[in-house]
Amino acid sequence: MNREDIERRRAETRRSTAQNAQLALLLEVASDPKPGNVDRTREYPDLLFEQFLAGAVGTYPGFQAAANGGAIGESFEQAIAGMSHQRGGNTQFGAVLLLMPLVAAASRGSLTQATATDVVESTTVEDCVAFYRAFEYVDVSVPEPPAEMGDLDVRQGASAEPAIRNRELTLGELMAESAPRDGIAAEWTDGFGWTFELARYIKTGDGPVTERAAAAYLALLSRELDTFVIATHDRETAYEVRRRANAVIDGTENVYAFAADLVSRGINPGTTADIVAGGLFVALERGLEL
Amino acid sequence: MNREDIERRRAETRRSTAQNAQLALLLEVASDPKPGNVDRTREYPDLLFEQFLAGAVGTYPGFQAAANGGAIGESFEQAIAGMSHQRGGNTQFGAVLLLMPLVAAASRGSLTQATATDVVESTTVEDCVAFYRAFEYVDVSVPEPPAEMGDLDVRQGASAEPAIRNRELTLGELMAESAPRDGIAAEWTDGFGWTFELARYIKTGDGPVTERAAAAYLALLSRELDTFVIATHDRETAYEVRRRANAVIDGTENVYAFAADLVSRGINPGTTADIVAGGLFVALERGLEL
Repeated sequence: MNREDIERRRAETRRSTAQNAQLALLLEVASDPKPGNVDRTREYPDLLFEQFLAGAVGTYPGFQAAANGGAIGESFEQAIAGMSHQRGGNTQFGAVLLLMPLVAAASRGSLTQATATDVVESTTVEDCVAFYRAFEYVDVSVPEPPAEMGDLDVRQGASAEPAIRNRELTLGELMAESAPRDGIAAEWTDGFGWTFELARYIKTGDGPVTERAAAAYLALLSRELDTFVIATHDRETAYEVRRRANAVIDGTENVYAFAADLVSRGINPGTTADIVAGGLFVALERGLEL
Repeated sequence: MNREDIERRRAETRRSTAQNAQLALLLEVASDPKPGNVDRTREYPDLLFEQFLAGAVGTYPGFQAAANGGAIGESFEQAIAGMSHQRGGNTQFGAVLLLMPLVAAASRGSLTQATATDVVESTTVEDCVAFYRAFEYVDVSVPEPPAEMGDLDVRQGASAEPAIRNRELTLGELMAESAPRDGIAAEWTDGFGWTFELARYIKTGDGPVTERAAAAYLALLSRELDTFVIATHDRETAYEVRRRANAVIDGTENVYAFAADLVSRGINPGTTADIVAGGLFVALERGLEL
C-alpha cells in the first residue's frame, strides 16, 4: 500500500452527512455553559448528559436513511425510535426534527435555505402520519393545540392517522400551522433563518467549537422567546429568560448564576438548544473544522 | 400501524454492537473526574473534548465493518482513518484497538474472555500489516521497541510490511511481543482480564454510568502502572501516579487537585482510560442501561 492508497482511504473516511448530523447533536450537548439545558457541567437528575450521548448514538440510522433518500417522516420516526433507548426520555426530539430536512437537502447535493425549504414543501401526508407515530416512543412536551386543531393533537400519536388522512395534511403544512407556537416549526416554515444565522456565527468564530456554540445559544436566547419554555412554563417565564440572557451579554448578570437558577427551577429553553444543533450541522457541512 | 408495529420498530432500533462500541468511547470521555485524561471538565489546549466526540463519530464505520465479519486489521485501519478527521490527533487509538476483538467476538454471538481470546488467536499476518498502516493516519506515542524488534517499530507504519511478511507475524503475535510494555497488548494477550473486571464493576454499580466509570478508572489507576505514562514520561512517574491514585481512594489526596496536577504536567494515563472504554463496551453488551 503506497501513499496514494493512504490518501484515498483518508478521503473515503471523511464524515458523511449523517455523521455530521450525529456530531452536531453531540457538540450541542457538550457546549457549555448553556443555561437551563443539559451541558457538560449541569444535568437534571432524570435527564443526564450520558443519556444525550446514547440518544445521539441511537439517532444515526435514521439520519442515514434520510441521507440515502428515505422519506423524511419515516426517517424521523426511525431516528426517534433509536433515540428512545435510554431512560432520559426526550433528549433530542426537537433537534432531530430540525435536522431532518437539512440532512435531506445536503444529501441531495446542496444545503441552502432554499433547498431546505424545497424539502419542506415536498413533504407528504405519509410523512405527517410517520411524524405523529414518533410520539409513541417518547413523551414530548408540546403546546396546547388551538381548538380547531384538536383532532390533530400530536399527543394522540399513531391514532391521529385517520384525521391526518381526512384533512390530507402534509408534514410541511402541519409545521406551518404549528409555527406560531413552536420555534422548530417556525424554522421549518420560515426558511431556517436562525439555523443558518447561527451556522455563520459558529463557523466564523475562534476557539473551541463548543464555546462558540454556547455563545450562539446565549445570543439566540437573548433575541427569541423560547417556545419550549412557553409550553412547559408560561410566556412570562420565557420573557424573564430572554431578559436575563440579555443581562448576561451586557455583563450585569453572571452566566453561571443564571444557569444554576434555571436548572433549579426546571426552566429548560430546549428549542433554543435545538436550533444550535441545527446551526452546528450546517457549519459542519460547510467545512467547520474541529 | 398498531401497537405491535411500534414494538417491532422499537426492537429493531436497539443499539447494535457497533453502536455500543461507539457509545463506549463517548461514555469514557464523558466520565469525570478522570485525573490526567480529557473528561467533561478538563482538556488539553491541543486535545479537546469535542475532538473525542468527532473521533468517536468517525470510528463507527470501522466498528460496523468488524461487526459484519470484516478482518480485524482492516476494520481497525478504517476506524482509525475515520477517527483522524479532527485536529486533536490520537484521541482513541488504544481504545479502538482494545475494542476491535471484543466487537468481533460479540458479533459472532458470544462475548466472553474466551471468545475474545479466540478472535485474537485467529488474527493473521494481513491483520498485522493493516495494523501498522493505521499509524499512517495519526501520530501515536509508543514505547521504544527492544533491539530485536527494531525492524518492526510501529512508527514505520506501512513501510514495515516486508518485515512483517518476512517474519510471518500475526497481529496476535505482535501483541504478545508488546505485552510487557503496553497495557492494551497485555489485555489482548492475557484474556482481557481488566476489561471484564471493570465491566462487572460498572454494571453492578449505582448512579450515573459516567460516575461509575470514573470510579473504575481510579480503581485501575491505583492497581496497575499505566504503560502510556511510562512510554511518554518514565516508570518513576507511573509509580507516582499509582501511589497518588491510592491516596485518593484512601482519602488522603483530593481527586481534583490530583487531576489538576496531572494535566498541568501533561501526565496522561491513557491506557487506563482505554481499558475503561473496553469495560463500558462489555457492560453495555451485557445489558447495562443508562
